[in-house]
Amino acid sequence: MKIRKGENILFLSEDKKFEKIIKYEPSKEVHTHLGKVVLPENLKYGEKLSSSKGKIFYVLKPSLSDMMMKIKRKTTIIYPKDAGFIILELGIKNGSKVCEVGTGSGAFLTLISSIVGSKGKVYTFERRKDFYELSKNNLFNYGLSKNIEFNLRDVEKEGFPKIKVDAVFIDVPEPWKLIKFVPEILKPGHTLGSLSPNIEQIQKTKEEMEKNGFVRIRVYEILLREIMVRKIGTRPREFGIVHTAYLIFGNLLK
Amino acid sequence: MKIRKGENILFLSEDKKFEKIIKYEPSKEVHTHLGKVVLPENLKYGEKLSSSKGKIFYVLKPSLSDMMMKIKRKTTIIYPKDAGFIILELGIKNGSKVCEVGTGSGAFLTLISSIVGSKGKVYTFERRKDFYELSKNNLFNYGLSKNIEFNLRDVEKEGFPKIKVDAVFIDVPEPWKLIKFVPEILKPGHTLGSLSPNIEQIQKTKEEMEKNGFVRIRVYEILLREIMVRKIGTRPREFGIVHTAYLIFGNLLK
Amino acid sequence: MKIRKGENILFLSEDKKFEKIIKYEPSKEVHTHLGKVVLPENLKYGEKLSSSKGKIFYVLKPSLSDMMMKIKRKTTIIYPKDAGFIILELGIKNGSKVCEVGTGSGAFLTLISSIVGSKGKVYTFERRKDFYELSKNNLFNYGLSKNIEFNLRDVEKEGFPKIKVDAVFIDVPEPWKLIKFVPEILKPGHTLGSLSPNIEQIQKTKEEMEKNGFVRIRVYEILLREIMVRKIGTRPREFGIVHTAYLIFGNLLK
Amino acid sequence: MKIRKGENILFLSEDKKFEKIIKYEPSKEVHTHLGKVVLPENLKYGEKLSSSKGKIFYVLKPSLSDMMMKIKRKTTIIYPKDAGFIILELGIKNGSKVCEVGTGSGAFLTLISSIVGSKGKVYTFERRKDFYELSKNNLFNYGLSKNIEFNLRDVEKEGFPKIKVDAVFIDVPEPWKLIKFVPEILKPGHTLGSLSPNIEQIQKTKEEMEKNGFVRIRVYEILLREIMVRKIGTRPREFGIVHTAYLIFGNLLK
Repeated sequence: MKIRKGENILFLSEDKKFEKIIKYEPSKEVHTHLGKVVLPENLKYGEKLSSSKGKIFYVLKPSLSDMMMKIKRKTTIIYPKDAGFIILELGIKNGSKVCEVGTGSGAFLTLISSIVGSKGKVYTFERRKDFYELSKNNLFNYGLSKNIEFNLRDVEKEGFPKIKVDAVFIDVPEPWKLIKFVPEILKPGHTLGSLSPNIEQIQKTKEEMEKNGFVRIRVYEILLREIMVRKIGTRPREFGIVHTAYLIFGNLLK
Repeated sequence: MKIRKGENILFLSEDKKFEKIIKYEPSKEVHTHLGKVVLPENLKYGEKLSSSKGKIFYVLKPSLSDMMMKIKRKTTIIYPKDAGFIILELGIKNGSKVCEVGTGSGAFLTLISSIVGSKGKVYTFERRKDFYELSKNNLFNYGLSKNIEFNLRDVEKEGFPKIKVDAVFIDVPEPWKLIKFVPEILKPGHTLGSLSPNIEQIQKTKEEMEKNGFVRIRVYEILLREIMVRKIGTRPREFGIVHTAYLIFGNLLK
Repeated sequence: MKIRKGENILFLSEDKKFEKIIKYEPSKEVHTHLGKVVLPENLKYGEKLSSSKGKIFYVLKPSLSDMMMKIKRKTTIIYPKDAGFIILELGIKNGSKVCEVGTGSGAFLTLISSIVGSKGKVYTFERRKDFYELSKNNLFNYGLSKNIEFNLRDVEKEGFPKIKVDAVFIDVPEPWKLIKFVPEILKPGHTLGSLSPNIEQIQKTKEEMEKNGFVRIRVYEILLREIMVRKIGTRPREFGIVHTAYLIFGNLLK
Repeated sequence: MKIRKGENILFLSEDKKFEKIIKYEPSKEVHTHLGKVVLPENLKYGEKLSSSKGKIFYVLKPSLSDMMMKIKRKTTIIYPKDAGFIILELGIKNGSKVCEVGTGSGAFLTLISSIVGSKGKVYTFERRKDFYELSKNNLFNYGLSKNIEFNLRDVEKEGFPKIKVDAVFIDVPEPWKLIKFVPEILKPGHTLGSLSPNIEQIQKTKEEMEKNGFVRIRVYEILLREIMVRKIGTRPREFGIVHTAYLIFGNLLK
């Protein structure tokens, strides 16, 4: 399990107070509030390192959740609780061709790209230059840009280029304005998904989906609670995220 | 989008009262309580068909959720809300090598196999002959058995064969009895996951994980609510599933 | 703790499969699918009785939840999880004067009447004759009608009579149509509450409240999960009620 | 609706950033970060007052929720979502005689005292002198001490004095140690309730209840979500309280 140069590792202090994804380079110095750690040659996953202050750090393999949550971001991101369910509803798997509108920081793109692999393809569209650049950098840093086509394009104004995909996902503030373009690029019978924090947004999106040939439209909300299983007592964490977004899906008729 | 013979389609009546995954064969007769439908030559996804009683049916591409939920089953299955999140926490993606203990009906296996693709590999273990046979049939019917190694084996008694994987998932009634075998097959730094309906099961699993070199152990519960967005009013569905299982994850140290 | 004739008891089989509120009469025969039970003279709360089939029954004091949930009903009722919170938000206590619109079966009325007591007063309004009669019978059977004024009246058409109350609660399908009448009867600074299953209803009610001088408008949803604490394992009940209603409250300005 | 001297008012700024319960005295100066407000003679509920900085404040009638949440506290308190449900399950109403163990800051006591009224009675027990004093002061300030008997007593060591009550509520860290004393003071057939943040506490309490003659034992968890109904969009508040406590109830057999 030797770690290659440039590979991303999850660097976590024993007390969980420092937690970051960093690129591995031998002799790299990692500075934390718990002291400095020098990454050794031939570092392996699962190793423990000591800091200059004698604190223990773990070198772990980042999960897809970690990669999404710890991405450099300037936007709200899609949380793993929602992202995993979206993948399943959209049927995104090895080899899928997927269109994403609203690249943002690239968190969900990280997930799609990782799953569809080299046989698959992701077309992602972003109208803001700064997010377009940010997401490109983020995915490049993750070593995940090969199967991605980054588009700096305002779909609301210009529509889509000539592509054909197995799934479409829209994550923009006004998704309903884009629905009419989707039948051009989504294979019939296949699924469009979107998400919005407010219920009125979902209502508008649903209406547009109905007008544009979508059936079996379904809306969900997913809640996640962390359970603290401890010697001193087991209970859900007291404070946390109560709402992120409503999810909507529908299948396109011919 | 012509559908190949033997391909699985989601066959859904307009009123959603009939919903089934069936294998496409030209001239196949599908008998429903809403009348008989004969599948035509050259059927395409997204088409509408009429039954002998004049009812409309949709021919849709089944999502991964559909394939999991509609599998022929003799066991409880893992629900999509949980399955998607597990995939992310375990970092299962294109090319991953994954070990699953407790094949059951093969619902979660469907998902893993679809995601890891032909470059990946799933080793699945089941001690009951009937579930072993059922899951093999199910996955074969889904056209998904190529990257799967089905093992009829009681891991609790025999341990694992000599494999090395990127992720381990355990779904058996007493997962804590298997934890001690996991460090032999899981790459250090990588993630083990399990799920159980009762909190005491999770407590025992956590204790065994701690004894066997796992860190960053975390427990979650995920709730899903369907939201009914309708002209006559928007609200969550009144009755439904309130609990399925608690999920537990941890990373292995060297 | 001798039980008086005519007093309501909660009659519950040991296995919880029979559970009913009945009026106590000595020598009364209670017929259940678990056999016949004859209520003895001088029955006391907390006693165990045997049925003709040898099954055990408990004689318990019904809680306010029991009285609400087991009322004879032709309408949906307000659930205890919501009812208790409403009482607190409306500040309903010993001696309060309360107006309720939408008597329905009288479940919530049971609660208000029990709490405000003989120094308090409940004015309840119902436009349907059958519900008006049903609720009167229900509350009379519960021995709770003394502090209640039952009104068969369509408030939407006729408005309120000349009353002044500490709290107003509206439980009708279109609460927004009644808001304009509330300032006539609610003491300034005090609270109006309402509940509706759909969010659009709440949106309309909120708009009308804003137009009619209400401030500090707040909306909540309450979820209740039963936790099964058992030797064989602890977990939330798997199936159940996921949504009942959204609750809205606001304070009236002068 | 003239407010009496010494009466508690909810004093709330228009923007909701200042919110406090204060005792009314004519000419009293209220200092806030939004400026100073002088309370006038003959102040009435529902009035609007201006601060020295030109900000608007509302004079509202505090609900029972307000009184609980805004009490001066040195302990965790019982939240209204739980408190209301407890009242219903325990059957606490006008005239009830209630025993509370674990007075704490007196938040729940405020509620019980308000509901049982002058015909009812609350016996409350606290073993810490500082909480005993705090709760006495709090309830005195709320004008609610007449029907309360405050006891500075360690029930775990000394048991209860000779009382007989309609309901018992225990809110201490180790409720299971007190269960054996409850049958002496609770009327048979009536209800005992308790609450604890951790599930292990509930498990121990349940075991003790079963040993001491309680039946129909039931455990619940209640979640509350605030819904933001706004012109710019409707959704649950994103962050908040996810868990407070599990609630347990049971009826005593003779």
